[in-house]
Amino acid sequence: MDVATDNARISLRNDYSEGAHPRLLQALAVASAEINRGYGLDAHSARAAALIRDRLARDADVHFLAGGTQTNLVALAAFLRPHEAVIAPASGHIATHETGAIEASGHKVLTVATPDGKLSPALIQPCIDGHSGEHMVKPRLVYISNTTEWGTLYSAMELQALGEFCRSRGLLLYVDGARLASALTTPGNDVDLALLSTEADAFYIGGTKNGALLGEALVIVNPALRTEFRHVIKQRGAMLAKGMVVGAQFEALFEDGLYFVLATHANVMAERLREVLQQAGVPLAVDSPSNQLFPVLPDGVVERLQQEVEFETWERRGDGTTVIRLMTSWATPESAIEAFAAIFAALYGDGLSARQEAPAKGA
Amino acid sequence: MDVATDNARISLRNDYSEGAHPRLLQALAVASAEINRGYGLDAHSARAAALIRDRLARDADVHFLAGGTQTNLVALAAFLRPHEAVIAPASGHIATHETGAIEASGHKVLTVATPDGKLSPALIQPCIDGHSGEHMVKPRLVYISNTTEWGTLYSAMELQALGEFCRSRGLLLYVDGARLASALTTPGNDVDLALLSTEADAFYIGGTKNGALLGEALVIVNPALRTEFRHVIKQRGAMLAKGMVVGAQFEALFEDGLYFVLATHANVMAERLREVLQQAGVPLAVDSPSNQLFPVLPDGVVERLQQEVEFETWERRGDGTTVIRLMTSWATPESAIEAFAAIFAALYGDGLSARQEAPAKGA
Amino acid sequence: MDVATDNARISLRNDYSEGAHPRLLQALAVASAEINRGYGLDAHSARAAALIRDRLARDADVHFLAGGTQTNLVALAAFLRPHEAVIAPASGHIATHETGAIEASGHKVLTVATPDGKLSPALIQPCIDGHSGEHMVKPRLVYISNTTEWGTLYSAMELQALGEFCRSRGLLLYVDGARLASALTTPGNDVDLALLSTEADAFYIGGTKNGALLGEALVIVNPALRTEFRHVIKQRGAMLAKGMVVGAQFEALFEDGLYFVLATHANVMAERLREVLQQAGVPLAVDSPSNQLFPVLPDGVVERLQQEVEFETWERRGDGTTVIRLMTSWATPESAIEAFAAIFAALYGDGLSARQEAPAKGA
Amino acid sequence: MDVATDNARISLRNDYSEGAHPRLLQALAVASAEINRGYGLDAHSARAAALIRDRLARDADVHFLAGGTQTNLVALAAFLRPHEAVIAPASGHIATHETGAIEASGHKVLTVATPDGKLSPALIQPCIDGHSGEHMVKPRLVYISNTTEWGTLYSAMELQALGEFCRSRGLLLYVDGARLASALTTPGNDVDLALLSTEADAFYIGGTKNGALLGEALVIVNPALRTEFRHVIKQRGAMLAKGMVVGAQFEALFEDGLYFVLATHANVMAERLREVLQQAGVPLAVDSPSNQLFPVLPDGVVERLQQEVEFETWERRGDGTTVIRLMTSWATPESAIEAFAAIFAALYGDGLSARQEAPAKGA
Repeated sequence: MDVATDNARISLRNDYSEGAHPRLLQALAVASAEINRGYGLDAHSARAAALIRDRLARDADVHFLAGGTQTNLVALAAFLRPHEAVIAPASGHIATHETGAIEASGHKVLTVATPDGKLSPALIQPCIDGHSGEHMVKPRLVYISNTTEWGTLYSAMELQALGEFCRSRGLLLYVDGARLASALTTPGNDVDLALLSTEADAFYIGGTKNGALLGEALVIVNPALRTEFRHVIKQRGAMLAKGMVVGAQFEALFEDGLYFVLATHANVMAERLREVLQQAGVPLAVDSPSNQLFPVLPDGVVERLQQEVEFETWERRGDGTTVIRLMTSWATPESAIEAFAAIFAALYGDGLSARQEAPAKGA
Repeated sequence: MDVATDNARISLRNDYSEGAHPRLLQALAVASAEINRGYGLDAHSARAAALIRDRLARDADVHFLAGGTQTNLVALAAFLRPHEAVIAPASGHIATHETGAIEASGHKVLTVATPDGKLSPALIQPCIDGHSGEHMVKPRLVYISNTTEWGTLYSAMELQALGEFCRSRGLLLYVDGARLASALTTPGNDVDLALLSTEADAFYIGGTKNGALLGEALVIVNPALRTEFRHVIKQRGAMLAKGMVVGAQFEALFEDGLYFVLATHANVMAERLREVLQQAGVPLAVDSPSNQLFPVLPDGVVERLQQEVEFETWERRGDGTTVIRLMTSWATPESAIEAFAAIFAALYGDGLSARQEAPAKGA
Repeated sequence: MDVATDNARISLRNDYSEGAHPRLLQALAVASAEINRGYGLDAHSARAAALIRDRLARDADVHFLAGGTQTNLVALAAFLRPHEAVIAPASGHIATHETGAIEASGHKVLTVATPDGKLSPALIQPCIDGHSGEHMVKPRLVYISNTTEWGTLYSAMELQALGEFCRSRGLLLYVDGARLASALTTPGNDVDLALLSTEADAFYIGGTKNGALLGEALVIVNPALRTEFRHVIKQRGAMLAKGMVVGAQFEALFEDGLYFVLATHANVMAERLREVLQQAGVPLAVDSPSNQLFPVLPDGVVERLQQEVEFETWERRGDGTTVIRLMTSWATPESAIEAFAAIFAALYGDGLSARQEAPAKGA
Repeated sequence: MDVATDNARISLRNDYSEGAHPRLLQALAVASAEINRGYGLDAHSARAAALIRDRLARDADVHFLAGGTQTNLVALAAFLRPHEAVIAPASGHIATHETGAIEASGHKVLTVATPDGKLSPALIQPCIDGHSGEHMVKPRLVYISNTTEWGTLYSAMELQALGEFCRSRGLLLYVDGARLASALTTPGNDVDLALLSTEADAFYIGGTKNGALLGEALVIVNPALRTEFRHVIKQRGAMLAKGMVVGAQFEALFEDGLYFVLATHANVMAERLREVLQQAGVPLAVDSPSNQLFPVLPDGVVERLQQEVEFETWERRGDGTTVIRLMTSWATPESAIEAFAAIFAALYGDGLSARQEAPAKGA
């Protein structure tokens, strides 16, 4: 019953409410009927890794893991010595929404305030300057996400600047790609997997949020970080006995570009949403070109919108407005956008009127 | 090609080489087309948990996790204070094949030698007696597996004795149920989920090794262990964004007893294997009534058998014999058993003859 | 030779450059000639603990540890479950100068910006509000230091407000007392050990920075935090075989109030320094009434001062001024203050003149 | 009163019941009156390190720490990656009496049964053979103690064999030298610090159990293990603000050989005890040539001996006999040995008679 109810509403809540694309389910059904080697040593995982490696500019190891937090914690646990710390944007997923997973493996996460969720050499430098000597942790790895938690993305030039900066400072660069698909298919994007493999020491290609039941592909480029990495995967409980479950899905995602097709759809749907908001003159908290939008709405509008649309409330500003997050996915139907447009048009006009009158009442 | 080759041979290697039962795949396809809440708060997970709780004698929380090592490490990390240790059989999975996952969360695993992979109060007592005072870890949790890593299982009486012993000594009892399905459906077994919920503080019901793509259901009975457990799941990277992936599979496994049907099949297939071995007079390293068999074979037989059958080599004894593990699964076809019987009959006769002649040659 | 050179300069660097007060050395010599039980179970530690307990308003366990970072990490490792986090001022020692010791035991330190190194309910509340649900760490313990890293201290009313707030929010209150002696003997202070025992769940009484060779006395008031605490002391390498080394020193410090006498001396010396600075019209970065002073000086003055006086450079402001830290100790001789006054008088006049001319030159 | 009572009895309990040798106390008093740099960067620590380095055959870093468990845990935390494990004798201190300190830093301790507390290549090899692949921890460091927990010691040849073995297997060799002084001064010993620096990657020179109030000198020879080691010292709470407390004591111990004089005394006292036991025909559980003796005595004798002598009960054998540990120290007076001899002569004769009669009574 709950499920039915859920389905009755329009969901712009996130990009992991739907399951897997039918072709991935089919791939799983096929692989399921075979005998496969366990623990990620199966033919599907091998082929998926090869398909990914084909798109890189440097040799790399590819490991398939189950989710983003898991991938982050396994990677960082393996890459860092005990006293080494991570530099992350204050809005970074590892800093906010992973229940201290990195700290649980012993490492401090140093955060840097950013206007839009993105780090730059200029933002990182003070953090490095502020940490020296053995009484402080040693900043060793820069964590960024692309797209960021604010839906923004890095340009090739920004990524190259970060890569160069990190190499010159003895820092590792790690890219959380939970929503890398959206970044790589956003209009205007000029980053690709090849560039990531050149600039980052390691990054992951998110599957869970782009049409897979579960799964992320961790790409480790830096040879020094590859040694005995599978030991750490196993130690952190991240090695699936039936590793083909992720391997076969990534095989399906990468064998003919489905990965990019799915993300493009999400971005196109977001673009339509953006138009709806722009036409209504709704301000955005952040100018995010990807599948996440952060409109600033009157509290009353948010309240009524919640009755018909599923979304996340991001920040109550305390000034009568609230930032919400609208998010599209590989599976968002066009009809949902149209329905939202209709609902919103009605509500927002009312909301604005109500708000414009409010000061008069309060005065 | 590799996959094809793999399929050409008979596999008695393990119970996780095949994927999921078709009904589970179908359930995934259905759930995949819905909008579901994330992180295990979906309707499928809720229903699967309810189906499991229906079979228990005590109230419990049920959490769905991805694999056995993960379940063990999340549970023990949440249950234990820093100085508290686990008592496990020397053959216990956490002690041998989890790359130190428990130690990585800070806890010592104290091991006890056993004849057959099973613990008893008499075996545990000396370990407790040997640990007192603040210079030693404090034994706090008893880890057992059912079936064990040697394919043996606990009787109701043994489990009750363990439960009573643990309660009287202030010890928690935790049961690793990676192969609980096989235990519960072995002829002669008198343990059920209700009894487990009475005697154990927590246990898990394995799905990965009984027809699921992935997934274990952790049942926490002891109320003191339940608080904020989901925080620890998330912190250890074990919370799937699409939690319905495991929930829907367990729903399918438990809604009409499929879970037990699948395991019964594996056990029946193992029983046929056992007959083949018995008829040939092959000794078994351990008398295991479940879906794992540990025949002791001449080295030469093992070598030739490997060319036609997939299995694990367990222990080279250095006396001309080797213990191998033959394992059946929910998907083992009868034809595989028949084929094995034929191959084995030929080989083993030769092997024995060769062996009996060997001393003469060597003399 | 280095040592001689060091001694030739005036040291206002910190409160741990000198060793132990002669009476503590004598106590050590006496205890050293006895047979004492090991690991803190000796008669000196017992008596020292009793002397401390006599000053408390609530029953407590007292443990003697070697240093501040060690005390903090042992205490917090023992007090917190894996997903529980600490709230600390951004300037808190555990957040900045302990090389991630708390994170190394698995716990996140959430920091709150403060004007003066002090936390209040109003400053803590937003941090609590911002953390809910299992995707975030759970704030569980509030860490404050008294005096703070900025030399400020809490009034009785402030401490009571914090205590009440923490109790009402299910938070533990922990006080880092590395410089508690200075706090308790500052003119105007109205906090005492009895009040600390009423408001804090645990706190420590610093010895290292108040006349001991080494040693801190950790007082655990909250009964729920006391269980098997010695196990954790041992596990973290913090249990001295010759526990009397710290016990005998604390016995000497507390048997007739030497602890307070020593700190009073440091405060009196700091008061004289404060007068020197005030008379010269030097601004202070923070109004600290204890044995730490943070004058803001022209960069040139700082540079020349360094040639004759030992002190810490705290913050280069980039506007031609630098914050330095001048610190007195139980052993600071009056002659050092007089010498500083003379040196400073000469330098500061010049420095100000030079600075006032500088803009003209730069223009 | 307790202290007085303690002193009234003969103590052969351990080598850390007495405090520090008077020359160390004097050195502390002198250093205490100086201004010293903090955190181990003082002139005393520097000179002590130089004195130790003078005795080595290879360049090394020397760090001064407070105790044995602390030294072991800091070193191993710094040396090992997360999945790497330690191989130790089953009787090794880290395996038994450090409350899981190594596990608390995330590493498994693999134990090997030994007849006398000593490891050899032949004993280690099976442990290595039994650990391969990513499902198991990777043995990476061999931990030995010299003298061992059974009072035995390694010959130069044994140590060289271990060193060579470890280098050829990619294993690090670490020597716990809590009682290294006793080993190096035992008659017949042919190991010295130079040899240790050649064979071990790191080892520590124990001070606490040889006349210091506290303190161990960790010698890190392998250059790869030295990087940023002080960060880890600080992170684990092991960096004393007044580092000279240990530095000055080691300076006194090593400036003219006092370290060896003190240990020689303990060994000579133990030799006299050994003669007493031999003359009485008492069997020893282990043939230990150093300052620990493990006589096997009738339970009744042990009980009565406890009334006049302090010692540790090591193992109740359940056959009417008990192994006890008698231990001498740098401070054991000859009078204590003589008194023991007298008491023992009386008791043991009675004990044996009683025991010989016992069967008759029981029959």
